[in-house]
Amino acid sequence: MSLAIISPNRDITPWLEIFKKTAGDIPLEIYPNIKNPAEVSAVMLWQHPKGSLQPFPNLKLICSMGAGVDHILGDDTIPADIPITRIVDSRLTFSMTNYVVMGVLNHHRQILRYQADKQARKWDMSNPEIPVNVGVMGVGELGGDVLDKLSLLGINVYGYGNSPKPDFDHPYYYGEQLETFLSKCNVLVCLLPLTAQTDGILNIELFRKCTKGTYLINVARGKHLVEEDLITALEEGHLSGALLDVFQQEPLPKNHPFWEQEKISITPHIASITNPEAAAPQIIENYRNLENGLAFINQIDRKKGY
Amino acid sequence: MSLAIISPNRDITPWLEIFKKTAGDIPLEIYPNIKNPAEVSAVMLWQHPKGSLQPFPNLKLICSMGAGVDHILGDDTIPADIPITRIVDSRLTFSMTNYVVMGVLNHHRQILRYQADKQARKWDMSNPEIPVNVGVMGVGELGGDVLDKLSLLGINVYGYGNSPKPDFDHPYYYGEQLETFLSKCNVLVCLLPLTAQTDGILNIELFRKCTKGTYLINVARGKHLVEEDLITALEEGHLSGALLDVFQQEPLPKNHPFWEQEKISITPHIASITNPEAAAPQIIENYRNLENGLAFINQIDRKKGY
Repeated sequence: MSLAIISPNRDITPWLEIFKKTAGDIPLEIYPNIKNPAEVSAVMLWQHPKGSLQPFPNLKLICSMGAGVDHILGDDTIPADIPITRIVDSRLTFSMTNYVVMGVLNHHRQILRYQADKQARKWDMSNPEIPVNVGVMGVGELGGDVLDKLSLLGINVYGYGNSPKPDFDHPYYYGEQLETFLSKCNVLVCLLPLTAQTDGILNIELFRKCTKGTYLINVARGKHLVEEDLITALEEGHLSGALLDVFQQEPLPKNHPFWEQEKISITPHIASITNPEAAAPQIIENYRNLENGLAFINQIDRKKGY
Repeated sequence: MSLAIISPNRDITPWLEIFKKTAGDIPLEIYPNIKNPAEVSAVMLWQHPKGSLQPFPNLKLICSMGAGVDHILGDDTIPADIPITRIVDSRLTFSMTNYVVMGVLNHHRQILRYQADKQARKWDMSNPEIPVNVGVMGVGELGGDVLDKLSLLGINVYGYGNSPKPDFDHPYYYGEQLETFLSKCNVLVCLLPLTAQTDGILNIELFRKCTKGTYLINVARGKHLVEEDLITALEEGHLSGALLDVFQQEPLPKNHPFWEQEKISITPHIASITNPEAAAPQIIENYRNLENGLAFINQIDRKKGY
């Protein structure tokens, strides 16, 4: 048995170094130069080319190299019965939360206004704070931590998910209560998993239900957002601005209209980056579990999609 | 007896409304139109003209309209035996902490870099985080809260003050340990009170002891910073940038070199603004205490200067 690495768009050198140092006995195959496809029992992958798992007749485990698994679930050439695992990393949570806190505070304290005032050498002390009530869609590992930390900073928070959570630590809405949830907040953070239900959820219909002037932060997946609807919502005033880390197409194409939108801030999918030093040992542990017939860690529920 | 208000640079309308609504019996005098100076037993003031308390022979209480009292202590025409009180307001702490957290995270997550990349339509995912260790000079009400909140966000913090604090919640240095403190951190936050000892403490001698590339945040008083030394420290690379909310002269003069410095971010003294709804009742309470011969709340120690 062997482990294949399929990650054509990322530098895998740091991953290989950790394997060499701590699990030198595991036979590795690196895509696209797979020598013995029949031997491959596990793959670790990120943004694999669709269909690239088809040559492996004896595949028994698929490990995402990041927190998300939508890139795997979106490939319908993968047999439905193979277990899929993801990375759980407290450093991912640290980075994601602090990115969102930064986005919320920059809106709250009007960083763009003061940058423009500096250009104009203008000293204007009026109305220094926009009051913020932050709604977080998606209250798993990451969304839950964002709610906790914003709340500790004294900011009002509201959570939204797809199922009831009677003992949740913060005001919480679910399912059909979306409209009530949106009426409570004027900053909207998307941290949902990408599933058939949430694909395109950030659309003009939702934006028109938002509190006038809501600020949007999308740090989940580009496919959550209908991009042309964001521009419409900004023009109509339903939204006042947005901070986006993810896009339908990445890298964001050079001719994309977002680059020119003053009200849209852009970062290149860096809100939270997988750290190989935390992630590789989890994949190694699951490979050992496969060798020994043990249960996997961080296995996802394929029906739920996360 | 009466209460005089001396605040020529601020709109006092919201303060007057609170007095009218909740303490209509207190006789008010408003500078510069003082009718019976001999009747004035208490003053509330902000940025008063030096010497403007001299006409009050029966003054028994001086109330700062904000958290700071340096504007009062800096006026040597004021008799040394009159008690001085200041405002303590949890909203001041909320605003100050969140401003500093914003500044730290914007440096950590390189907001200026990504703004420039957006202008250039550049998608660069490399090195998305600058590791930060934050040192806070001044660990009173405000500095202590900044240390607590940054620490809760998972950021390493260090405190510095002028006296030992054996039971302090965070790594702490004092007095002669300044150099050790500076070697621990690469973000330096000034939240010191302004006293004879701290006037000009942020100078080139201190900057040259900082970890190379330290980022400076000054939210205390403009006089803490020797402004020309900041420009030298940026040119020499001891500092990598600064966020300043306070200046030697405010409003910052139109021809000040800071406006043109790309590495200096500027806000117009709005990190933390006194909220009359929290502050006025504290002054009313102290006026009542004066009427009834009781101890004052939030009285400062004139020897310490805060």
